[in-house]
Amino acid sequence: MPAKTMDELVSLCKRRGFIFQGSEIYGGMQGAYDYGPLGVELKNNLKAAWWRSMVYERDDVEGLDAAIIQNKHVYKYSGHEDTFTDPMVDCHECKSRLRADHMKDIKVCDNCGSTNVTAPRDFNLMFKTNVGPMVNEESYTYLRPETAQGIFTNFKNVVDSTSRTLPFGIAQIGKSFRNEITPRNFIFRVREFEQMELEFFCKPGEDEKWHEFWVGARKQWWLDQGLAEENIQFEYVTGDDLAHYSKSTVDILYKFPHGFEELEGVANRTDYDLGSHTKAQEEFGLSAKVKKNEHSTAKLAIRDLEENKWEVPFCIEPSAGLDRGLLAVMTEAYTEEELPNGTSRTVLKFKPHLAPIKVAIMPLKKNKPEIVALAKELKNKLQKLGLGRILYENTGNVGKGYRRHDEVGTPICVTVDFDSIEKEGAPVTVRDRDTMEQIVVPAAELPAYVINYFINQN
Amino acid sequence: MPAKTMDELVSLCKRRGFIFQGSEIYGGMQGAYDYGPLGVELKNNLKAAWWRSMVYERDDVEGLDAAIIQNKHVYKYSGHEDTFTDPMVDCHECKSRLRADHMKDIKVCDNCGSTNVTAPRDFNLMFKTNVGPMVNEESYTYLRPETAQGIFTNFKNVVDSTSRTLPFGIAQIGKSFRNEITPRNFIFRVREFEQMELEFFCKPGEDEKWHEFWVGARKQWWLDQGLAEENIQFEYVTGDDLAHYSKSTVDILYKFPHGFEELEGVANRTDYDLGSHTKAQEEFGLSAKVKKNEHSTAKLAIRDLEENKWEVPFCIEPSAGLDRGLLAVMTEAYTEEELPNGTSRTVLKFKPHLAPIKVAIMPLKKNKPEIVALAKELKNKLQKLGLGRILYENTGNVGKGYRRHDEVGTPICVTVDFDSIEKEGAPVTVRDRDTMEQIVVPAAELPAYVINYFINQN
Repeated sequence: MPAKTMDELVSLCKRRGFIFQGSEIYGGMQGAYDYGPLGVELKNNLKAAWWRSMVYERDDVEGLDAAIIQNKHVYKYSGHEDTFTDPMVDCHECKSRLRADHMKDIKVCDNCGSTNVTAPRDFNLMFKTNVGPMVNEESYTYLRPETAQGIFTNFKNVVDSTSRTLPFGIAQIGKSFRNEITPRNFIFRVREFEQMELEFFCKPGEDEKWHEFWVGARKQWWLDQGLAEENIQFEYVTGDDLAHYSKSTVDILYKFPHGFEELEGVANRTDYDLGSHTKAQEEFGLSAKVKKNEHSTAKLAIRDLEENKWEVPFCIEPSAGLDRGLLAVMTEAYTEEELPNGTSRTVLKFKPHLAPIKVAIMPLKKNKPEIVALAKELKNKLQKLGLGRILYENTGNVGKGYRRHDEVGTPICVTVDFDSIEKEGAPVTVRDRDTMEQIVVPAAELPAYVINYFINQN
Repeated sequence: MPAKTMDELVSLCKRRGFIFQGSEIYGGMQGAYDYGPLGVELKNNLKAAWWRSMVYERDDVEGLDAAIIQNKHVYKYSGHEDTFTDPMVDCHECKSRLRADHMKDIKVCDNCGSTNVTAPRDFNLMFKTNVGPMVNEESYTYLRPETAQGIFTNFKNVVDSTSRTLPFGIAQIGKSFRNEITPRNFIFRVREFEQMELEFFCKPGEDEKWHEFWVGARKQWWLDQGLAEENIQFEYVTGDDLAHYSKSTVDILYKFPHGFEELEGVANRTDYDLGSHTKAQEEFGLSAKVKKNEHSTAKLAIRDLEENKWEVPFCIEPSAGLDRGLLAVMTEAYTEEELPNGTSRTVLKFKPHLAPIKVAIMPLKKNKPEIVALAKELKNKLQKLGLGRILYENTGNVGKGYRRHDEVGTPICVTVDFDSIEKEGAPVTVRDRDTMEQIVVPAAELPAYVINYFINQN
């Protein structure tokens, strides 16, 4: 099998309508991508799989969907306003701004060679904007750089409305924004992206056990999405690379076309976050070193009934990048196959639950009313199963249709032909993406066949 | 039935975990709301119903998910940079900024009474930010004020990747941002919100027929979400109220607690949008008056095979507010009922497909292992049906559980009791939200009962 290159993926993504460069007709917007008709289905399927696994299949996790624009105090006390920065150097000659840790020599401009450059200065990676009619020193805030903070600031709201006790988690999927200096590697490092984050709250002392649990559970989930074991690695973050609030972090890496890189981080954040955002910090004997909070109006603590005291929980955070996850799934699924007849095909071997189109229904002749009518009837029947998108595709070229659906990862193609309208039982041809085998199924049995296929393969 | 007030809804939403004020612990962020554990489910269910109806159940619509941060030229040619404004007056005395069309007298400050005020000046409602390392006159752009523009700028990408011909549509759900001067009426008028927008492209001349079709289809969809016919009105926008690009617009109004207000607008936008964003505008004999486009790199036209020419389609836009839709659904569902025994109950009579929790499974005794085990087993079985969230609720107080689930709109509560573990067939008690009737169902038949309930009621 030939190597999978990023260029091949980018090309397929554009050609087949998975992913387009953002604002492409105006020369693009660097670090922003638009998901096309198949990309949005794949992304929604991946989100649904995460939500199912995190919220629906557990009894100890609640969902949340917090706003992107938050009060600036959220970012003050989360630490992002002070520390979410890259060191930058300005060139007085050519006016370019360069990332200090990427320069060959921080005293010489990489762009024009001038030595008339500033010392490195911290540049904040959050997008700043102003809220309300005035633009002044009071009205600014930022777009959130991670979804997590909305979970911490709603901790009390969730506890009060659900009566949760420890351990329990809060899960969230949503957009985040980081003004990356150098977006790169397609949808891997971008300025606008989606995250799938769980904050799992537990008693101090139980944090290491839960950290270990979530590292294992998250790896298993990625395997369930079709990633191969040999393409996943753990990286144990230690020493200087460990964020100041983290007791320990394990990064789950995937072998992207550009190399092994982070897909998800699982961090033991101790009581840093709730401790940072709570009022009356001095009451709780926090283990983390936090900035004194002069603005919070709520105690982010929970009653420990056994010890009869209020306690700020520890928190384990599995934080996954959705766009990266989608890139990983595409990379893994992308396959070039040599066929016995000497030709080759490109096929995206998605797990069935992730496939953007579940079944394509193709009438053999687009101008034969009875064939078209049966094909449409079958499309509607299968659509009602609630499995996802069923495509009625009326191009009248079945061979081309198979190849196109291989290339977008449709697990099943169904062809309605003359036999279907003439023979008893209305037999239709069902073609499997992976084996390319074709079998004949009576139309009435098609829904059961399809349900069975999608349930057994999941 | 007593009147439904906004205060009652806001209170229920916070108490039960539907919706919280954004950044509440820091005094809030005006015009931003956080959706809690039940709110996120309700919102996702409403989105899924729209997507199913718009994309899955039609054969002529593709989905899309474009970025929030777009190239500033998008907003230049969409008209938003020049015209998406409110007139504002600044007071030189007290420094407040007031919306001119809301002032009692535009020559007198409403805040301090001073006449030392400016003439009204246009204030743009888009949130501005800077992208990349530099903050200067080149690097700014805006957060999108509507999702629609991402559809228009991707028109060619979608046509090229799907081989669509007219008529066809592109559907999108996503966040939009407007720096409203006066956010108000809970989640009705906010600064951060979600939209569900379809741009349906057709031949000029067929636009009026399709406009009429979509007005009817969209009303029917809202009825299918449970809104009562008598609470829906049409408003035909005419004359000065009609946007300059619109040939005709019908607003679908709903009777919110604060009165009849817009839930969705269905506009005939002619060839204004594609015409505005296309290059070589002069080639297409556009009907709309557009700004000369000096930046677009793509022709946003489609080949008319019958007339053998390239043509810019007309566009019909049904544009719905998701948060408003959720507020409408909550308003309609909210019911105070007097019961025969003299007490009363609050019940959210959601359509089953919208209910945040589909089924609650409650063990009668939380410390009886066999009861707990059966309850958990049933929860897992029902969860696998893929209907949405099934809640295992181990509080050991069934009566309170029924009332709580009435108040959050759970259609079915299932109680596992001593009979369930002692009697043959493991009978469980199934309680209906609306009728409050209880029947006994053998545990093995519960999945079929639940499937039947959710399919027959949809």
